Amino acid sequence: MSEKRKVHLDDHEMPKFWYNIVADMPNKPYPVLHPATGKPVGPADLAPLFPMQIIQQEVSSERQIEIPKEVRDILKMWRPSPLYRATHLEKLLDTPAHIYYKYEGVSPAGSHKPNTAVAQAFYNKIEGVKRIATETGAGQWGSALSFAGSLFGLEIKVYMVRVSYDQKPYRKFMIQTWGGNVVPSPSPDTAAGRAMLAKDPDCPGSLGLAISEAVEDAVSRDDTKYSLGSVLNHVCLHQTVIGQEALIQMEKFGEMPDVVIGCHGGGSNFAGISFPFVGKKIKEGMKVRCVAIEPESCPTLTKGPFEFDYGDTAHMAPIVKMYTLGASFMPPAIHAGGLRYHGASPLVSQLLREGFIEAKSVPQIACFDAAVKFARTEGIIPAPESSHAILGAIQEAMDAKAKGEKRVILFNLSGHGHFDLASYEKYFAGKLTDYAMPKEDIDAALKDLPKVSV
Amino acid sequence: MSEKRKVHLDDHEMPKFWYNIVADMPNKPYPVLHPATGKPVGPADLAPLFPMQIIQQEVSSERQIEIPKEVRDILKMWRPSPLYRATHLEKLLDTPAHIYYKYEGVSPAGSHKPNTAVAQAFYNKIEGVKRIATETGAGQWGSALSFAGSLFGLEIKVYMVRVSYDQKPYRKFMIQTWGGNVVPSPSPDTAAGRAMLAKDPDCPGSLGLAISEAVEDAVSRDDTKYSLGSVLNHVCLHQTVIGQEALIQMEKFGEMPDVVIGCHGGGSNFAGISFPFVGKKIKEGMKVRCVAIEPESCPTLTKGPFEFDYGDTAHMAPIVKMYTLGASFMPPAIHAGGLRYHGASPLVSQLLREGFIEAKSVPQIACFDAAVKFARTEGIIPAPESSHAILGAIQEAMDAKAKGEKRVILFNLSGHGHFDLASYEKYFAGKLTDYAMPKEDIDAALKDLPKVSV
Repeated sequence: MSEKRKVHLDDHEMPKFWYNIVADMPNKPYPVLHPATGKPVGPADLAPLFPMQIIQQEVSSERQIEIPKEVRDILKMWRPSPLYRATHLEKLLDTPAHIYYKYEGVSPAGSHKPNTAVAQAFYNKIEGVKRIATETGAGQWGSALSFAGSLFGLEIKVYMVRVSYDQKPYRKFMIQTWGGNVVPSPSPDTAAGRAMLAKDPDCPGSLGLAISEAVEDAVSRDDTKYSLGSVLNHVCLHQTVIGQEALIQMEKFGEMPDVVIGCHGGGSNFAGISFPFVGKKIKEGMKVRCVAIEPESCPTLTKGPFEFDYGDTAHMAPIVKMYTLGASFMPPAIHAGGLRYHGASPLVSQLLREGFIEAKSVPQIACFDAAVKFARTEGIIPAPESSHAILGAIQEAMDAKAKGEKRVILFNLSGHGHFDLASYEKYFAGKLTDYAMPKEDIDAALKDLPKVSV
Repeated sequence: MSEKRKVHLDDHEMPKFWYNIVADMPNKPYPVLHPATGKPVGPADLAPLFPMQIIQQEVSSERQIEIPKEVRDILKMWRPSPLYRATHLEKLLDTPAHIYYKYEGVSPAGSHKPNTAVAQAFYNKIEGVKRIATETGAGQWGSALSFAGSLFGLEIKVYMVRVSYDQKPYRKFMIQTWGGNVVPSPSPDTAAGRAMLAKDPDCPGSLGLAISEAVEDAVSRDDTKYSLGSVLNHVCLHQTVIGQEALIQMEKFGEMPDVVIGCHGGGSNFAGISFPFVGKKIKEGMKVRCVAIEPESCPTLTKGPFEFDYGDTAHMAPIVKMYTLGASFMPPAIHAGGLRYHGASPLVSQLLREGFIEAKSVPQIACFDAAVKFARTEGIIPAPESSHAILGAIQEAMDAKAKGEKRVILFNLSGHGHFDLASYEKYFAGKLTDYAMPKEDIDAALKDLPKVSV
């Protein structure tokens, strides 16, 4: 019990550079394609959506990209984030494994999302943008960008997937407290939203659709750009502060992970914790497995094909090569709202395709079982998204126990569950169900893959 | 902007002793009296309520009391807590003052309460207690004790003031996630609760009444003891880890506070941040003002007399000498639920009476104004209770600005407001009102002071 519990780093130990894994990937990423033409886009095509420095980061193959001082000064409000050894959980599991977790719930919005929100708000601000439109699933991203917007004096418009808007009023109030403007998606504020409402007034929404609304909002206004909280290369890039800090912290604990685990929705949280380790695996032959854990109800990495697909429902966002369930895929309203995206980060997808990382899907109820075990030992009530990583870590620890192996496990606890307690109540009341996506539903949603010319 | 933002301490810098201010007070505290006889109680009278080691701490005048290793091992899950300099808020206020805050919201339950909950659960556990009954106002204390109970395998029964039970469902789910059993107070589970329900079925409850229920529960069962989250000496004692850490952290920042601020409900949060400073003021002549901030709607320290009074509505808890609004005082249902107690810590009361600390009352809406300013600059959405301390700090900073003085201000940010966002929504909707307790209401509630023989 008196083993070291945690390692905090000093302000000056926060990374000064983001780590760009593209520099170390043996094969270059596929190009990004225009949704109308199916042909590779250039910076000018992306300019209505993103500030130029973000576009440059999106296509960069520089290994190290400097984090601007203004961004670092804000990240220091909560970074470096702590890394804990889960001694109480280990004891409960009676496992020879050592379980560590990096905790991103210490950020103002309670998740890893502000790491990129601050950077994106900054680049928009210095290029004179006044307003950013975005989408949010569980509300983590919308609140993170509202927080960042409030610091830089930017107006933030959030299209929030309706099922979460209704289930998570507190996230909505949080967005408002930071001065953001939030509407349920589908909304009457955009053509994409109005079209969906005409077809289905009770549509619960999806991330794909909310993206369409936010993109439409951004391209239709001169003062507005768009911002995405996951999937894209620059977002994964900004999250690598997590894994870089974890490397230093694990060194201070005196051991390195055999396995690194992150939950997977769009991919940025998984990229954040794992890419610095994957880089060491590629370059230095570090012996480490990196495992992305996704929900069985939205099994993009484990059941989708690796194809070019639209990023959004209305085909306004760029086409990228990724594992996908099809842009028209409407996931069931499970509670891990942040993991309901039909696609996946192109970088994560390619690394999976090329065998540098692994993926696994898990059922919902087992995730809540794991979350409650964690809350009652380690004290932190996790976000349902993060509980997927906890379950992944527990499964590794039990496997190590069965095999009598010492195994060092590191996972990213991407956020706390303070706004998800209604889901916990449903879990305790036995009202949650598991749902594995049937193959025929996935096949059906994949009929509309875009025609591309690359 | 690149001034130092925060100081984290290492695990080994966490205090190994609690600081007992009684050792340094020029006058000894008044005795605790039996509610039935009005005469001083001995340890045997308190034994049905508390384990013996807690009783010894309650009456101890030892300066240093060792924190058991088992307690320290758990506190290390989140302690030492960080201390921040509020550089972004300072910039907004354009003040020459330096504003620092100690942040207790990093604990599992999101407030300072687990500091004592863990210690109390431990002492109960080692004396063979199976079950603890307690009350909670805003839910901070009930969730903290449920967390501690889950770690030690103790059953926790929480009587939660009904107005908070209804307004804060998430706190309730949090208690349940940690395995606690929570009922609204007044409840049909106790004679005190049933009597109140018979008189007023819609009674919103009060801390005084919830204490009666929990005390009755504890004394009527052999396997159960009682636990209080504030007011008493041992609770203030356990919170002194806050101020002790802050002293080290301020040293590392290279300056000492001119003024130390905490919000005040029962007194333990204020005691926690201030007593180590008050001790230095008494012993070493440290030049520091310590200011307790309370709501105008429950102005115990600023408008109550310093008298012997009952700790609870039904006169089952001990009588103590304190500032009080009268045990039958039913505070209006303002949102800072944790500050609605009729009395105050006897130690805080005596220190105020003898001029070592100051007290000030503030209106609710100004507290929310301050909270939103803070959230939009420092990123953390504070609990409404903590916002009283923020307002206190802002007022000091503006006073320093008006006088052109440099002033070093330290306040305790006792918790986050993740479960209070419905109150923020009311604030933004203009639905909150200020309410200063009229003198005649206070006088009326003071008619029933106990007859005592000391």
